[in-house]
Amino acid sequence: MSEKIGRIVLDRFESEALRGNPHGDPHVRTIPVYLPPSYDGSNERYPVIYWCHGFAQTALWGVNGSPGIPSLPMCMDRIIAEGAPETILVMVDAHTRFGGSLYLNSPANGQYEDYIIGELIPYIDRTYRTKQERDHRGVDGKSSGGYGALALAMRHPESFSAVASHSGDIYFEAAYRPLFWEFLNQVHRAGGVERFLERYLALPKRYDGAYIAALSMCFSPNPNRPPYYFDLPVDITTGELIPDVWARWTALDPVFMAESHAGALRSMRLIYLDCGNHDQYYLHFGARLLSRKLTRLGIKHEHDEYEDDHLYVNYRYVESLSRIAAVIA
Amino acid sequence: MSEKIGRIVLDRFESEALRGNPHGDPHVRTIPVYLPPSYDGSNERYPVIYWCHGFAQTALWGVNGSPGIPSLPMCMDRIIAEGAPETILVMVDAHTRFGGSLYLNSPANGQYEDYIIGELIPYIDRTYRTKQERDHRGVDGKSSGGYGALALAMRHPESFSAVASHSGDIYFEAAYRPLFWEFLNQVHRAGGVERFLERYLALPKRYDGAYIAALSMCFSPNPNRPPYYFDLPVDITTGELIPDVWARWTALDPVFMAESHAGALRSMRLIYLDCGNHDQYYLHFGARLLSRKLTRLGIKHEHDEYEDDHLYVNYRYVESLSRIAAVIA
Amino acid sequence: MSEKIGRIVLDRFESEALRGNPHGDPHVRTIPVYLPPSYDGSNERYPVIYWCHGFAQTALWGVNGSPGIPSLPMCMDRIIAEGAPETILVMVDAHTRFGGSLYLNSPANGQYEDYIIGELIPYIDRTYRTKQERDHRGVDGKSSGGYGALALAMRHPESFSAVASHSGDIYFEAAYRPLFWEFLNQVHRAGGVERFLERYLALPKRYDGAYIAALSMCFSPNPNRPPYYFDLPVDITTGELIPDVWARWTALDPVFMAESHAGALRSMRLIYLDCGNHDQYYLHFGARLLSRKLTRLGIKHEHDEYEDDHLYVNYRYVESLSRIAAVIA
Amino acid sequence: MSEKIGRIVLDRFESEALRGNPHGDPHVRTIPVYLPPSYDGSNERYPVIYWCHGFAQTALWGVNGSPGIPSLPMCMDRIIAEGAPETILVMVDAHTRFGGSLYLNSPANGQYEDYIIGELIPYIDRTYRTKQERDHRGVDGKSSGGYGALALAMRHPESFSAVASHSGDIYFEAAYRPLFWEFLNQVHRAGGVERFLERYLALPKRYDGAYIAALSMCFSPNPNRPPYYFDLPVDITTGELIPDVWARWTALDPVFMAESHAGALRSMRLIYLDCGNHDQYYLHFGARLLSRKLTRLGIKHEHDEYEDDHLYVNYRYVESLSRIAAVIA
Repeated sequence: MSEKIGRIVLDRFESEALRGNPHGDPHVRTIPVYLPPSYDGSNERYPVIYWCHGFAQTALWGVNGSPGIPSLPMCMDRIIAEGAPETILVMVDAHTRFGGSLYLNSPANGQYEDYIIGELIPYIDRTYRTKQERDHRGVDGKSSGGYGALALAMRHPESFSAVASHSGDIYFEAAYRPLFWEFLNQVHRAGGVERFLERYLALPKRYDGAYIAALSMCFSPNPNRPPYYFDLPVDITTGELIPDVWARWTALDPVFMAESHAGALRSMRLIYLDCGNHDQYYLHFGARLLSRKLTRLGIKHEHDEYEDDHLYVNYRYVESLSRIAAVIA
Repeated sequence: MSEKIGRIVLDRFESEALRGNPHGDPHVRTIPVYLPPSYDGSNERYPVIYWCHGFAQTALWGVNGSPGIPSLPMCMDRIIAEGAPETILVMVDAHTRFGGSLYLNSPANGQYEDYIIGELIPYIDRTYRTKQERDHRGVDGKSSGGYGALALAMRHPESFSAVASHSGDIYFEAAYRPLFWEFLNQVHRAGGVERFLERYLALPKRYDGAYIAALSMCFSPNPNRPPYYFDLPVDITTGELIPDVWARWTALDPVFMAESHAGALRSMRLIYLDCGNHDQYYLHFGARLLSRKLTRLGIKHEHDEYEDDHLYVNYRYVESLSRIAAVIA
Repeated sequence: MSEKIGRIVLDRFESEALRGNPHGDPHVRTIPVYLPPSYDGSNERYPVIYWCHGFAQTALWGVNGSPGIPSLPMCMDRIIAEGAPETILVMVDAHTRFGGSLYLNSPANGQYEDYIIGELIPYIDRTYRTKQERDHRGVDGKSSGGYGALALAMRHPESFSAVASHSGDIYFEAAYRPLFWEFLNQVHRAGGVERFLERYLALPKRYDGAYIAALSMCFSPNPNRPPYYFDLPVDITTGELIPDVWARWTALDPVFMAESHAGALRSMRLIYLDCGNHDQYYLHFGARLLSRKLTRLGIKHEHDEYEDDHLYVNYRYVESLSRIAAVIA
Repeated sequence: MSEKIGRIVLDRFESEALRGNPHGDPHVRTIPVYLPPSYDGSNERYPVIYWCHGFAQTALWGVNGSPGIPSLPMCMDRIIAEGAPETILVMVDAHTRFGGSLYLNSPANGQYEDYIIGELIPYIDRTYRTKQERDHRGVDGKSSGGYGALALAMRHPESFSAVASHSGDIYFEAAYRPLFWEFLNQVHRAGGVERFLERYLALPKRYDGAYIAALSMCFSPNPNRPPYYFDLPVDITTGELIPDVWARWTALDPVFMAESHAGALRSMRLIYLDCGNHDQYYLHFGARLLSRKLTRLGIKHEHDEYEDDHLYVNYRYVESLSRIAAVIA
């Protein structure tokens, strides 16, 4: 093989922040790390991109791929072959038994934000030859991971200077609201939220079947409501919004966070958003709305919309990875 | 044949109210009338149920059926065979080229409410041996026709004393909001609402593809906006609600009309609602919510929920038809 | 109304051939008859087209329609307005409780072919002012009714001189074979064919859920196998074809009948086939194959393929109706 | 972490057999190897299971997973924790640019069987501490990989003594025939097979869109037909089977190979088959048929059918892995 390719390391990372989390999810996570082609033969330090996986996935999802649906390491190999600066890619893991933490701290899920910012980044910086300033760190992701990238960048501008979101969960009115009805049907059939979740956990295969409940654990946790510690933002019989609970969701919607975190966004050297124009979760509406809000706030960013849907859009990742690699080099 | 069955007449009814309507839809409509078994051999007068068809249908839909999916005449034959009072059933037609008028007057569609209340009922009363007081008249329907029945009863208690809705369009937040996103995708692809509707009209087959536009013509018409005379309640790029337009929709939502028309509802001798518990349009949430509101208002009604979805629920029609026939006899 | 339109009569026709049929299906059928615009004001005799409805439908399906999905009478009005000879259209009814007879005699279903050829045609000829020779009679239909039209024309050239099939059931290998697997899943779940059919009959709504069983009643009836009197052409556990039973099916496949009934086909003054190019039942493959066979047999015919699927293709009916009307005038 | 877990190694394996393959697919493959918990701390030799991935996947698919959809290493950790003998698992890669080689040699795809049997197994045996006799080697897989496992075991009893297939491609009549029609629709739309494949290769995302063509490259390659070197087993216009080409497919169908390779199957110490009872590809019919054939041949095997479909059935893998691990220890 003449082409230069990077190396994948599968680290097992032990988190104190996640130890004893309410779900009993593992506090040890497999963290795939992509080391660029020149890494092993040099003493250089490298910039780092953190990648946030989507809902129902774990970090290992990122290494799975094929020539037709390239994995993240394949994307990195390609952009570097095409001239991008050599960059480390760290695949963060934020899976929970209900599908995902959205990269936030929550009394229902555990301290995922603390684990990433306070533990994983330092671990990477002491384990690999990294450039350790925010200027050399970016965060990227897809779907719920696009949300995660935006939320982490907005809340931690001290850690990241570039952010990208592919088909990210933006504008919850479009992304999540339409999904409540079918969720309530299932809750109704199960005889209540708790029984629905008990049954869910007993299923032999669990993918995204508890999506709305998992989101509620992220956006409207309630430490006083065992055993799952969250409030639903809707009346389970009629589906009517419960305004004060929904307000807790919208406060964490990137469309609204853009205003409350405008300073952080302004400090980014790159903000990149894209989405397919017939995304099944209607996330293109959110990308458009966030872009419009950023424009109104005078915040520089790039927004692409392309002909595709939500699934298997891995070929788009080179767009963000190459842009981030260029600015954090 | 020993069993007694009714007779179907296909009247062609010419409406002055619909003449010259903005779409150029026909002002002559085929109105199927079911005359009960004893009608031809008697001189009696009969009570009348008006039936409102669903979206994208015409009144003739009501006569189509099979043993497995009974037509309205088959349902009438059956309830009468089982002891219900002999009753005339009139199948109202409120089709428009975009799919339906929802039985309302609208500067975008034409004066469908006027045509039904002011023309069709008098025509039926002078053409057939009917009992002509409100106490002997009921209104019923399915889906958009369930909406029509509720709206006509609430707005015209002088005409009807019993109302039923099967899987009716109730609680627009559940019934219509989730459909906006895909509609906007199509509008976007077509390059705007007008071009979308032009293309729609040019299709060789047209069923419910212009649903959201058609609803806008019913709920938020705008006489100052040619050529189709309506306002959309959302921003076509981002899907954000336009509050004052959406307020015009909700004012016509049965869930909210129940309060503004509580007196009319209280005057009904029968209010019957049902819906399948996994209706694809989430109409069971609206039925539950309307039932809850009626209960709070102290308005007597019956609310059934059953194991099924939105499609082909003709077997449920005997529930409302027999109840209405009993109270308007 | 200045435009001339025809009149719809809903005849109730009592069949001796269907009396006492094995399913206990009604021997009295509603037969809609379209009388062309000039009929009532003239003493002329008119040619007649017989229309065969699709599976799970009854004859009344033909009168249901809208401007966007025209009914058969609307199609007739239109072709006559555009210059086609005035023609009567008779909507045949061949529904069974399992969905349809395919217009064949069968010990499992009843004598549907006899009823149409031996009773219904004579009834129409003595009830209406018809031209009574084969030269003035055509047969047309869609889907299973397209099959019916072809089968009736091939088996009864003494009755018809023109035939058309829209999206007709042709080439059972493509049309039916792929549907066996899901049917067997359901049979397996029910615990056998009989129990599956018992449960089917107990459903509150029955459309096409017993399709493969119904076809078996048409193509491989077995008078010695009560209570439903048919052989399945497959092993119910493995789905393997049972060759001698399947041979009975293929003998009735138009693709093979074309050879055994080439003389009848040659006597037709019009053979018209069309099908959408992405028909969900893959019927376009059958139309192509039948056309190829007819060409090889030197039998003149017309074959159209158009951009559409199997559903709501009513706008195509003017193609066959106008062609038949022209040759049987 | 107190629980003992294995280690994943991502080997890059260079194959001479695949070098210069007709598609230009890589001859270097990433081969994930699971080393059991005690491996690193011992000098023991271990038995080996080879795992065959499904269509459109690569070997890396096997390491992707979550608590709800366990990866292969997670399955191995679990069976070992529950007492299964410690065993190495090698994830074979047999991806091609059209989706998969089905683990066969083919002039259209390359020498995948040679690469596995002649190169990969020796490489594993010289790289890791393995037990190197057939008695200590098993082969397993899912979907197309279930096919691969069966084909490799039947053709190479000198290499394997235990075989399992989860939802394997068995009985091509059920598994593949129903898929031809939609494939032909796409070929028709593209204007021929070659143009279809050209367009396919130009797509930004490629998963299983060329399935039938890929299978033809495996089962009916034709070295004389550039540029893709295969014969389709059907007429592309009518879908009629081309008997002599289809005979080449069926000769490679496990249902028929069972007879031609009965000796090899008899030499297996374990044959395990399972499939969900509503597999979307109807593979449960094939599992039943193969089981019936094996029984008729007097070949001992185990056949399970369970309540599920084709997707995400990873939780089933412990059934085969634990059984194989037990017999090859």
